[in-house]
Amino acid sequence: MSMETVSEARAFGGTQGVYRHASAVTGTPMTFSVFVPPHEDGAKLPVLWYLSGLTCTHANVTDKGEYRRACVDHGVIFVAPDTSPRGEGVPDDDAYDFGQGAGFYVDATEAPWAEHFRMKSYIEEELPGLIAREFACADMQRQSITGHSMGGHGALTIALRNPDRFKSVSAFAPIASPTNCPWGEKALSGYLGADREAWRLYDACTLIREGARVKELLVDQGDADVFLKEQLKPELLEAACREAGIDLTLRIQPGYDHSYYFIGSFMRSHIEWHAERLRR
Amino acid sequence: MSMETVSEARAFGGTQGVYRHASAVTGTPMTFSVFVPPHEDGAKLPVLWYLSGLTCTHANVTDKGEYRRACVDHGVIFVAPDTSPRGEGVPDDDAYDFGQGAGFYVDATEAPWAEHFRMKSYIEEELPGLIAREFACADMQRQSITGHSMGGHGALTIALRNPDRFKSVSAFAPIASPTNCPWGEKALSGYLGADREAWRLYDACTLIREGARVKELLVDQGDADVFLKEQLKPELLEAACREAGIDLTLRIQPGYDHSYYFIGSFMRSHIEWHAERLRR
Repeated sequence: MSMETVSEARAFGGTQGVYRHASAVTGTPMTFSVFVPPHEDGAKLPVLWYLSGLTCTHANVTDKGEYRRACVDHGVIFVAPDTSPRGEGVPDDDAYDFGQGAGFYVDATEAPWAEHFRMKSYIEEELPGLIAREFACADMQRQSITGHSMGGHGALTIALRNPDRFKSVSAFAPIASPTNCPWGEKALSGYLGADREAWRLYDACTLIREGARVKELLVDQGDADVFLKEQLKPELLEAACREAGIDLTLRIQPGYDHSYYFIGSFMRSHIEWHAERLRR
Repeated sequence: MSMETVSEARAFGGTQGVYRHASAVTGTPMTFSVFVPPHEDGAKLPVLWYLSGLTCTHANVTDKGEYRRACVDHGVIFVAPDTSPRGEGVPDDDAYDFGQGAGFYVDATEAPWAEHFRMKSYIEEELPGLIAREFACADMQRQSITGHSMGGHGALTIALRNPDRFKSVSAFAPIASPTNCPWGEKALSGYLGADREAWRLYDACTLIREGARVKELLVDQGDADVFLKEQLKPELLEAACREAGIDLTLRIQPGYDHSYYFIGSFMRSHIEWHAERLRR
């Protein structure tokens, strides 16, 4: 499983790279980006994962996320995977919220998705292994995770299922409970079938209610986000955290929408929050 | 000449807008972006113009320029125009470096370009008038200008021709002397004809040699920029400034290329440099 360099550019004194590898898990080439801040030879740097939302590739946050200066200031590596397998042999759907670009960080079990759409295993197992092998400076003992929208859902559920792997987890406008919104119901029924029992692994609120725990959560949510009421529903996460005694900091940001302008505005704040926890 | 709001989004506590108007100068709709930092009612903020390079619209720097936080920190409005007229009735060329997306900040005199390709007048006269009328907080007595590549050429030549309008001028990897490189020779001969006499207005080095003056210049240039030797030639600007006694700070940035990773890396430094001069 070798890795190919698509591009590398100097940025903020570090290196912004885009890489491709043949994924054994998805059975496709997968592209992702990694920003490595400047560091001394032999230094080990913590890793912040960023999972993107519907329609995105690695490129959206790499272009618009405004994370590099904060990563340099705090010595954090930033990894941005793609949101699904892609390519001609990969099944797709005309809708923006299903199929390619909409992997929902699940391991699909339904045909025709099950063969390639295995983003849970890809993010939980294969890509961290590749990063550990290919980036000698990546300290895999110090990882944190964040994400936006569908990727916020991904970050929350992956962290809740793997609490020992991550020092901290945050999200930007996450889909708080995919089993309770149109985006999630469509994706989970499509990838996993109609039996909601199989959906439990992929809903942060359900996981918390069934005993999964992280110590604390940071979530930013714009109050001018058009998806807030029908799709995102942070109040469900708030209720689940309250019942479970999870320390959720939910910041409702006045006037902010669902775009990368919102993400970019609070990216530094999230990186600082993670960096503090990655130092502990 | 009314202005239409294409989009407005909260960003870094301010407003990132994209606007469109029917330009009398180009005879086309023209789109541009403006970032207005948070400010008190009635406050007047200085304006930094950013002129983009070949193939770009307002969107490239708006997405990738990483200017907003620095503009908030220094209270500076950031205006990003398009690089040419566009649309179905507008002449174009298959090449990336001529026609739409490649206006070169000239007023064309050759057919079929002369009717619409009037970016000199658009940036020097029409758009500042529109900004002054539509943005009450814009202090047009305090303007500075910068740009990248073709837009660096634009910033340098516009400032040299209008030294009283701008408090300061800088550039990222500018085309230092369009009369002495393939990009410039193609564009200037295409838009202005073969007589090089008409090109004089559009070459920073020629303008300086013929007496145009600014007090000082800041230029960043990556040494891994593939266009450095054939197209950009900062050494020509250096020589012209030396002869003229213009205080040029030319920073050769090791390892940086021609991309927005380079621009973003040094954007804050340019905004700080301009802000200091806009305060004087």
